[in-house]
Amino acid sequence: MITVMRLGHRIERDKRLSTHVALSGRALGCDKMVYSGEKDARLEQSVRKVAENWGGDFEIVHERDWKHAISKFDGIKVHLTMYGMPFERKISEIRKKTKRRNLLIIVGGEKVPHEVYQQADYNLQVTGQPHSEVAALALFLHELFKGKELERKFKGAKMKVIPQERGKLVKKKMA
Amino acid sequence: MITVMRLGHRIERDKRLSTHVALSGRALGCDKMVYSGEKDARLEQSVRKVAENWGGDFEIVHERDWKHAISKFDGIKVHLTMYGMPFERKISEIRKKTKRRNLLIIVGGEKVPHEVYQQADYNLQVTGQPHSEVAALALFLHELFKGKELERKFKGAKMKVIPQERGKLVKKKMA
Repeated sequence: MITVMRLGHRIERDKRLSTHVALSGRALGCDKMVYSGEKDARLEQSVRKVAENWGGDFEIVHERDWKHAISKFDGIKVHLTMYGMPFERKISEIRKKTKRRNLLIIVGGEKVPHEVYQQADYNLQVTGQPHSEVAALALFLHELFKGKELERKFKGAKMKVIPQERGKLVKKKMA
Repeated sequence: MITVMRLGHRIERDKRLSTHVALSGRALGCDKMVYSGEKDARLEQSVRKVAENWGGDFEIVHERDWKHAISKFDGIKVHLTMYGMPFERKISEIRKKTKRRNLLIIVGGEKVPHEVYQQADYNLQVTGQPHSEVAALALFLHELFKGKELERKFKGAKMKVIPQERGKLVKKKMA
């Protein structure tokens, strides 16, 4: 079970980025997103709507007390931050450990409290350049799964893309 | 030379996502971002500020006429869209072609006009799931460069992260 945790969500500022974190997490192999900060009914709705239409069991849950949630988490805790160690050096170690244990991937908002750095088992950078938690999460998951996440099937999907050279084709399952 | 083109930028709605597209592009091997839609001085400033501090020659340019810009582009044109063909099947072909030619990677906003699908040499999906143009761009570049983009150096950087197990260390170059 892989959970992505989004810290410090603010409705006005982060609505779209947090949606992208959730949907990228879902598309690339996470089972769940937990987010702290402001509770956002529209964020939750839009993510649940995608999961309902496109299949799988992805969940989104608001967490009031992120410190408690991180400390009680039973599994490997990875914090993605540009200040950490290069993720590519640690990924095979993490891959092995998560065969038997759950994984929590923490991505920050603007300012990540120092407790997160302390509580994480790994603080990892996806390059040391400032860029995007969405890109960092995607690359981390891609290396964790060695690209197999691209073949992931989503059970119970009502909608499915049929790949095209040009144009759009979506297969819709009638209820 | 690799250019990422962001279509249909709207200042209010897209400011942060377009910034993430630009910065992920920069961090992962693009030379330039062109964007259409509303011209956004703050987006440009914040991207230029990062390039100034963190090094390299990344540029950001607003383009009024995206149709013309795409049609006149001299090189391979890739459009990332969930409706396209799986990118992993085409990436080695594109890698070969771009050894001698420029590459334009087009990422959309909400609704991408059908002309883009027509003008692109490749319409490619990074999974057929709805997720994020930032994640799609990151994975495309990562496979294009076979992970070598993670070792990229940025010339003339004033700031540089020194990777840490815990905490933050940034080396600042004094002028």
